[in-house]
Amino acid sequence: MAEDPKAKIAVCTDMKDLLPEKTVLLTNSSTLLPGTFAPYTGRPEKYLALHFANSIWKNNTAEVMGHPGTDPAIYKETVKFADEINMIPLQLHKEQPGYILNSMLVPFLTSAQALLATGVADHETIDRTWELAAGAPAGPFKILDIVGLETAYNTNQMKPESQVEGSVSNLIGKLLKEKLDKGETGVNAGVGFYRYK
Amino acid sequence: MAEDPKAKIAVCTDMKDLLPEKTVLLTNSSTLLPGTFAPYTGRPEKYLALHFANSIWKNNTAEVMGHPGTDPAIYKETVKFADEINMIPLQLHKEQPGYILNSMLVPFLTSAQALLATGVADHETIDRTWELAAGAPAGPFKILDIVGLETAYNTNQMKPESQVEGSVSNLIGKLLKEKLDKGETGVNAGVGFYRYK
Repeated sequence: MAEDPKAKIAVCTDMKDLLPEKTVLLTNSSTLLPGTFAPYTGRPEKYLALHFANSIWKNNTAEVMGHPGTDPAIYKETVKFADEINMIPLQLHKEQPGYILNSMLVPFLTSAQALLATGVADHETIDRTWELAAGAPAGPFKILDIVGLETAYNTNQMKPESQVEGSVSNLIGKLLKEKLDKGETGVNAGVGFYRYK
Repeated sequence: MAEDPKAKIAVCTDMKDLLPEKTVLLTNSSTLLPGTFAPYTGRPEKYLALHFANSIWKNNTAEVMGHPGTDPAIYKETVKFADEINMIPLQLHKEQPGYILNSMLVPFLTSAQALLATGVADHETIDRTWELAAGAPAGPFKILDIVGLETAYNTNQMKPESQVEGSVSNLIGKLLKEKLDKGETGVNAGVGFYRYK
């Protein structure tokens, strides 16, 4: 779901006087950059993102992402903290919308949805192609079922192109909407592109 | 490498009178669509693509792609033929530049190269992120080493954006060129993003 920057700024502003000066503040935001909120935290050098990935497969990864004003010592401490709570820390050198994983996952999943929405191949064939070629346990539609089709739909609808009738993004939106309307939202619902027990 | 449509049309034109009428003609072209050449084959209904994927992982896949004029019976026969020669046939319902696999692989690999070229993370971290999240044996830079950095460079340079100084595609081109100039072209050379024995 889209996150609201204004609400986040309000929370930062409210919290900054309640927290002791020494407190490190971590955000788990999926789409917003820490640099946008750092000025409102009262501790920009002690503010950064620690993002727990949706467990797509089975590993507990945590992407650690500072903003230009984050103190490198605090960054290091956060990496250590992630490790201590049994997450696998993945370090980013700079701010990036979508972090590392979603920066790759979104274009990958979009390309697969485009193949289906334009009628090039069915979802089983597309998954099989990827699984065989990449030696991966799950093709894009199995991943989409795990991520959830509502998230995929919301991500797609954020693109201005999705509102252009007949565009690939518009076709993807229609395809996902049809499935959402039938309650086929993914693994959580027991059915998405595939059926689950 | 880019394929030359004119040379391909000449070959089709030369062959069409040499081959018996009954002969099915298959193209293995990676980037060109069969529909472009069908009119020059003298047998458009018996002309289609059977594309053997670069063995990225270890499976012998063959994407079967007709053009609008391909006879469905001939398409079926080709699927059967692929199976008989121990390939795994993957069926496309219509023409698609890049078939199924490259339609997903190119945006995926591009997104990974963008993260490296813009300094968001190093290639080991990017690979690790993908491998952990997708449960895959090889992240994008391991795949790039198998595909070959020369192919990646040529694919990148085909984009007009690659010529725009400072664009992400331009940065990717420079990064790959630097590696090619050092002979670090991938697994075949013993060194690419990683070193191989």
